[in-house]
Amino acid sequence: MKTAVGVLGATGMVGQNYITLLREHPWFEVRHVAASPRSAGKKYGDAVAGRWQPADDCDPRVGSLTVEDAGDVSGAAAANKRGDCAFVFSALEMGKDETRALETAYAAAGIPVISNASAHRWTADVPVLVAEINHRHADIIPRQRKNHGWDRGFIVVKPNCSIQSYMIPVYALIRAGYPVERIIVTTMQAVSGAGYPGVPSLDMIDNIVPYIGGEEEKSEKEPLKILGAVGDGVFENAALPRISAHCNRVPVSDGHTACVSLEFGGKKPASVEAVKKIWAEFRDLPQEMGFPSAPARPVIIREENDRPQPRKDRGAGGAMAVVIGRVRPCGVFDIRFTALSHNTVRGAAGGGILNAELLKHKGYL
Amino acid sequence: MKTAVGVLGATGMVGQNYITLLREHPWFEVRHVAASPRSAGKKYGDAVAGRWQPADDCDPRVGSLTVEDAGDVSGAAAANKRGDCAFVFSALEMGKDETRALETAYAAAGIPVISNASAHRWTADVPVLVAEINHRHADIIPRQRKNHGWDRGFIVVKPNCSIQSYMIPVYALIRAGYPVERIIVTTMQAVSGAGYPGVPSLDMIDNIVPYIGGEEEKSEKEPLKILGAVGDGVFENAALPRISAHCNRVPVSDGHTACVSLEFGGKKPASVEAVKKIWAEFRDLPQEMGFPSAPARPVIIREENDRPQPRKDRGAGGAMAVVIGRVRPCGVFDIRFTALSHNTVRGAAGGGILNAELLKHKGYL
Amino acid sequence: MKTAVGVLGATGMVGQNYITLLREHPWFEVRHVAASPRSAGKKYGDAVAGRWQPADDCDPRVGSLTVEDAGDVSGAAAANKRGDCAFVFSALEMGKDETRALETAYAAAGIPVISNASAHRWTADVPVLVAEINHRHADIIPRQRKNHGWDRGFIVVKPNCSIQSYMIPVYALIRAGYPVERIIVTTMQAVSGAGYPGVPSLDMIDNIVPYIGGEEEKSEKEPLKILGAVGDGVFENAALPRISAHCNRVPVSDGHTACVSLEFGGKKPASVEAVKKIWAEFRDLPQEMGFPSAPARPVIIREENDRPQPRKDRGAGGAMAVVIGRVRPCGVFDIRFTALSHNTVRGAAGGGILNAELLKHKGYL
Amino acid sequence: MKTAVGVLGATGMVGQNYITLLREHPWFEVRHVAASPRSAGKKYGDAVAGRWQPADDCDPRVGSLTVEDAGDVSGAAAANKRGDCAFVFSALEMGKDETRALETAYAAAGIPVISNASAHRWTADVPVLVAEINHRHADIIPRQRKNHGWDRGFIVVKPNCSIQSYMIPVYALIRAGYPVERIIVTTMQAVSGAGYPGVPSLDMIDNIVPYIGGEEEKSEKEPLKILGAVGDGVFENAALPRISAHCNRVPVSDGHTACVSLEFGGKKPASVEAVKKIWAEFRDLPQEMGFPSAPARPVIIREENDRPQPRKDRGAGGAMAVVIGRVRPCGVFDIRFTALSHNTVRGAAGGGILNAELLKHKGYL
Repeated sequence: MKTAVGVLGATGMVGQNYITLLREHPWFEVRHVAASPRSAGKKYGDAVAGRWQPADDCDPRVGSLTVEDAGDVSGAAAANKRGDCAFVFSALEMGKDETRALETAYAAAGIPVISNASAHRWTADVPVLVAEINHRHADIIPRQRKNHGWDRGFIVVKPNCSIQSYMIPVYALIRAGYPVERIIVTTMQAVSGAGYPGVPSLDMIDNIVPYIGGEEEKSEKEPLKILGAVGDGVFENAALPRISAHCNRVPVSDGHTACVSLEFGGKKPASVEAVKKIWAEFRDLPQEMGFPSAPARPVIIREENDRPQPRKDRGAGGAMAVVIGRVRPCGVFDIRFTALSHNTVRGAAGGGILNAELLKHKGYL
Repeated sequence: MKTAVGVLGATGMVGQNYITLLREHPWFEVRHVAASPRSAGKKYGDAVAGRWQPADDCDPRVGSLTVEDAGDVSGAAAANKRGDCAFVFSALEMGKDETRALETAYAAAGIPVISNASAHRWTADVPVLVAEINHRHADIIPRQRKNHGWDRGFIVVKPNCSIQSYMIPVYALIRAGYPVERIIVTTMQAVSGAGYPGVPSLDMIDNIVPYIGGEEEKSEKEPLKILGAVGDGVFENAALPRISAHCNRVPVSDGHTACVSLEFGGKKPASVEAVKKIWAEFRDLPQEMGFPSAPARPVIIREENDRPQPRKDRGAGGAMAVVIGRVRPCGVFDIRFTALSHNTVRGAAGGGILNAELLKHKGYL
Repeated sequence: MKTAVGVLGATGMVGQNYITLLREHPWFEVRHVAASPRSAGKKYGDAVAGRWQPADDCDPRVGSLTVEDAGDVSGAAAANKRGDCAFVFSALEMGKDETRALETAYAAAGIPVISNASAHRWTADVPVLVAEINHRHADIIPRQRKNHGWDRGFIVVKPNCSIQSYMIPVYALIRAGYPVERIIVTTMQAVSGAGYPGVPSLDMIDNIVPYIGGEEEKSEKEPLKILGAVGDGVFENAALPRISAHCNRVPVSDGHTACVSLEFGGKKPASVEAVKKIWAEFRDLPQEMGFPSAPARPVIIREENDRPQPRKDRGAGGAMAVVIGRVRPCGVFDIRFTALSHNTVRGAAGGGILNAELLKHKGYL
Repeated sequence: MKTAVGVLGATGMVGQNYITLLREHPWFEVRHVAASPRSAGKKYGDAVAGRWQPADDCDPRVGSLTVEDAGDVSGAAAANKRGDCAFVFSALEMGKDETRALETAYAAAGIPVISNASAHRWTADVPVLVAEINHRHADIIPRQRKNHGWDRGFIVVKPNCSIQSYMIPVYALIRAGYPVERIIVTTMQAVSGAGYPGVPSLDMIDNIVPYIGGEEEKSEKEPLKILGAVGDGVFENAALPRISAHCNRVPVSDGHTACVSLEFGGKKPASVEAVKKIWAEFRDLPQEMGFPSAPARPVIIREENDRPQPRKDRGAGGAMAVVIGRVRPCGVFDIRFTALSHNTVRGAAGGGILNAELLKHKGYL
């Protein structure tokens, strides 16, 4: 018997990916879809007609659901009571303040919120979860509930999609005893990261754009919260690594690539081979527990000198793995490499689903 | 009365660019074209039919020249004697050893060689010229001639196309009194850098390739020769900056983009504004002397946060300027920025022509 | 002394192209720029900052003009009186009904309107001008003025950008005495035809879209008005050719390509060579009079079997020529060929300017 | 117990697709791989390292096979005898004459050849099979064997990849009693059709190429053989439809799109809806018999006005279905539509495998 879940912002591109990825999910089943008032009242299939992005057609079972108004929290609470919406995945595409307020309202109404939105990433008691890195951060939930007087609701978020490809390998090194002190990274990010319609085609024909609004700041700060400690009911940022990010948009549909140079802060791995071994063998709770969306190998090493490539590698591990290539010594820092992850699966809906699996495992859902 | 010049490797993509850029040149005129035996004996226009790449049609005057065998040095020497080939631009596309030998043979036959090829970049007495940076290196020519017993011939080369966009600004900082110690750079390079047919389209549709054979090594070492000193008849590499380069191929026709983080080694500019001022005001010999191919401003600063972009900025300054944007502090090093230059003009044929203008000015041609 | 002109919709992409193409125009000079109330009151340079599309930077003289509200017709009339706006180029991007009403208001206020918009294409007494085809249609202007009681104002429009590439050659055949009866054409159209932001990049990476809203209908009907006769103060459509158009969007920035099969209705040219001769020799009033924007050769024939190509051929004849290749017999109709024209120059602002030159020549401006 | 099969030209792009598509095939198993002498003797995995194109990694079982010299027919005959190569899929990439001779040699050696190559398409007794159209043509095999004195060997081929998308729907109309007399078609073909390295990226960035060597001729003639009759031991071409094809290369990785206008020669379907019904209900032997590679629905109709699109529709029916959209009346002929099929699956290796399934079903394998 599957848990019935809801998707907020269900008609947007990330929302569509949730519907697609949850189609055959063994634990969860979409029974509640909510979006802006413009779509509310329509059949979901009609609401997304003409702007459905995934290659696979929309699940007809979800297509026949009536879209609810995402702002109607009491309606969602009623659905929650009758067993149709145990929790929600939030893919809201409103302004930051409205998103923050609305996600808070859902939590206050007793509905856990597993969010892709950036609104709550810097809320002091909201964890920014990457299941392989900081699953222990989920254990702030009881304290978060207490802070707000919530009984069942809570909020967790996931980080910006651009950092997934290198933060898992960086964490693997730290966990293995090699603190990372400095990172200079240049990303080449896919257009799907900007949603649909998103990036104009005139900007992506015979061109790249060396700027993505807000992306570098997020890339430099969010890792410090993810790697941080749980203090007295709030998160305390890690002091390191210091990160400098150059974020670029390139003509790729899906798959963010990162060129990374990093410097260790203390003990250093003996060799490039030692680094690759740490990554190839890296497993964490999602793998140990066999969560349905967890890739068997979170980090896949390619030995060819021209990999990873978005078109060939973004689907690795069900599009949930990080693919790393070109691991080699850096003439300025210690090592350098190229990393790739699928931004709309691992970096968005797939990452959110993995977080839900983690929270289910831990008993919070 | 223009100087008659030759182009070796005239039928290849760089050779075609030489023909195109020299069409209206005020000092030089192409009267000798040479290529592989396969093309030799044909009219140049027929030899390039079906593989002419520039947007403008081939200069009909050059199109009617008969292609010579590039290996026929004595024929070139005869052309030199009768005033049809005062010097050659080399865009040879043979193996490195053959290129080195053939360019040497031309020089020995009394024909100066201004080369785009990489073969002689590490020959100890051959200067790697970027006219705005190290024009004084040209003054090794008398010594080079003496080393080889050449009377009129000599060899100069230009560096790899990927470094033009950031080495001119880096040099401008050094010249202004701010030594640069460390650079981490990621390039996103245009496919024309690989010639024609070059990069397969299957690699450049919905994709990038995080590797260009040999490019990172060149990017890291050639700047040290360019910034180096003339020792006793040979060049001595500069010790700094240490450079780490990540070189990527992206779906752009022309225009190499570089994301650069750099650290100063001693005195630092007071601010980002001070750095921009140095660059905006930078001029060197080519500007002072008004060489025909020299951009009025070698470095152009864009203030928009999403520039430079290849399609919009590669043509700046007659495609001979470097365009820089996003100058900002770096959270790990001192400053960071994005730089762009046109790889087949400034980075190839245009750079070669500027070198010839420099050598003409200095009296070596 | 140049004629001062205005541009309506000056901040949009077509408007920007007008500003760019008129920069060095020998007859006209932009002294009035108008756009939506959102931009009104700003300096033009500020209004387009961050969304300027042309490769060349904005003309600083126009950049310093204050943007007027395009809806302020009386303000424009005042500019007209003081000599700053003899006529307007309309690149309005409002709804069809508003555009039609506003253009009519300008004409009623005494200001001739040379429009790129589609709003008035089916107004019975408004000519749809292609200067090389139906310049005589301009002579309806006195009658149009009379119909409306206008003294100096009038309205002329240009057709949809997708038909320019083949309607000039088709007309050349008709004019040579070979009536064309049936045309089946498939277009592959550039994204700039949809303006900016226009087509989402997700639709144009590893993809084409086999549909452009309204384009096929326009492509099939507008030629009949252009080839039609001036009846009693209104245009009467030609009965032929019957046209079937398949319009597709492809990942090209500029340049619409058309694959055309056509059948003659009576006398047929003796051979493919005869057809090519008609095209190569085709000249009409713009060439005879040497209008500044008229290409010397309106139709350029390429003999290579893989031309025309957008990137190589769109700039031909100052981007105002049609480039035709692959002229060959058709196994089903009589002949077939591939035609290309630059959609944002010949097909938009350049075509509008050529119309203005025609009207100036005829004394209507 | 699966039938052991061989792949000739196994290291090329089509060969790689055969290896990939056969990985989980229920009837066939690759046990023999052959290529040029350059690859012979290597492990298959090593031979394709660095030029493996499919997204999925190479089947390790095949990767460990030793590559044979495709020219070694007696070696293949020995493999055939010992049960390792019951028949071969030919994806040879040699010249046409060599291919024809080599395929004939395999057949003469008793090894049936199911070929993707074009060499034997016009051999009078070799069927050009599209399993849903002319499976009865396979029954020429006994006669072909007799013609050549072969006991077990034979040769069948598949047609050019560009016609698959519209010939199945055209045949469905003919079979339903509506003879098609004239077709004008424009194709927009994916670069994978040219293999790897194939089309240079410089030709496919901001560009299309309106020409594919030999493609139009094949597109116009091969359908007549496919729709033809088996005469006295040789095929007799159908007289109709007359076809005119314009073939273009566009920046798409996989998926050929065709814009088709067609005219019926006698009885016409009552309406566009009647046409769509014929297509939606079309099934033939592969569907009736449930061949493993047969799509459940060979023709899928999309009702959205902007479909089919390569990226969204090429995977339909396991990349073996034709997807059709925009079915509408044609202003010149009777109906028009856009059709898409996956050129490297249905149009190449997948089509070959379906042919093998057909031949197995008919008892020829």
